[in-house]
Amino acid sequence: MRPYEKDPAAIYAASFATVRAEAALDRFPQDVAELAVRVIHACGMVEIADRLAFATDVAHSAIAALQTGAPVYADCEMVASGITRRLLPEATEIRCTLNDPRTPDLARDLGTTRSAAAVDLWDTDGAVIAIGNAPTALFRLLERLDGGAARPAAILAFPVGFVGAAESKAELAERPRQTPFLTLRGRRGGSAMASAAVNALGILSAGGVQ
Amino acid sequence: MRPYEKDPAAIYAASFATVRAEAALDRFPQDVAELAVRVIHACGMVEIADRLAFATDVAHSAIAALQTGAPVYADCEMVASGITRRLLPEATEIRCTLNDPRTPDLARDLGTTRSAAAVDLWDTDGAVIAIGNAPTALFRLLERLDGGAARPAAILAFPVGFVGAAESKAELAERPRQTPFLTLRGRRGGSAMASAAVNALGILSAGGVQ
Repeated sequence: MRPYEKDPAAIYAASFATVRAEAALDRFPQDVAELAVRVIHACGMVEIADRLAFATDVAHSAIAALQTGAPVYADCEMVASGITRRLLPEATEIRCTLNDPRTPDLARDLGTTRSAAAVDLWDTDGAVIAIGNAPTALFRLLERLDGGAARPAAILAFPVGFVGAAESKAELAERPRQTPFLTLRGRRGGSAMASAAVNALGILSAGGVQ
Repeated sequence: MRPYEKDPAAIYAASFATVRAEAALDRFPQDVAELAVRVIHACGMVEIADRLAFATDVAHSAIAALQTGAPVYADCEMVASGITRRLLPEATEIRCTLNDPRTPDLARDLGTTRSAAAVDLWDTDGAVIAIGNAPTALFRLLERLDGGAARPAAILAFPVGFVGAAESKAELAERPRQTPFLTLRGRRGGSAMASAAVNALGILSAGGVQ
């Protein structure tokens, strides 16, 4: 059996030191770089730094919202489950409407996925949105914004996969509807990345890094 | 706004058709290929097919165990949260001991991470193990097997990150301790991949694909 590092603090320090040494972070504002670092840490891929698209004010806007009581909406339970509660302001509500009893009927009525229908139950106004699974959730959110829904404080968009993921994130990056955003272009994504971005906001909000 | 596919069945079919068309699956037995397809679907990366290491009997062993009531152990709540309950036999217990009240003290006593200490609370005998976060959980599991712990039915190992992830998975792939396994070599991994592998077992177990 090969030896391995068991000390949590040493693992934590070495992990983030590796990300900072290897990832190309120069083009990010300092606060957005913290989000990038945590997203990279969650997926083990430093090269995704080059595929992240963002608004320069995304961290600032999201943190200001969280500090004044904004909720976080997650598109699936895995994203909610990956958010470290204690990092966020005590009043922050983490909401996921995918398993809301109204969602299946809504999906049927709208002729869409449950993930998209769940978005219709979100109060988008000033909220922090974390999407880590479903492209249709991101598409539906953008449709709602086009239809006049109140702007979120930030959209953290990491839908993943082979149908609509790249397309929904390109739509967001090209036409962000005046909403601060962070997204990873292409097929890659996932709930761990979305949760990591929210956790980074919590750390920044508590003054942990800046 | 660009048009997008809203029909869940069409999205599902197109997603898996893309994975099967693009991923190099020839070297996998048919049942293990189903696990590979689901893991790829969960992360959006067809190229990981080339980095998967496995025992040819991993799916067979895990399915037989699940069908006779074996539990699934997950190293973190995100993995547990990503497992689709209804796909598994009704009696299957999904267990995660990371937040067990005994775990923090155990970690302190052992001088290790909570993730590793949580493994000491697992009854490994014939269980299906799904690791999607912590390299130290996989290292500790291998240590326990070296120390005489009963063999699991299967180890699905997808710890992720920059300290110990590649090393722990290499240790498993090179010396699997007579235990059927599936793992992704290198830094990449994550809870979505681990959950997807378990979900694939459920589908195979119900005769959904074979």
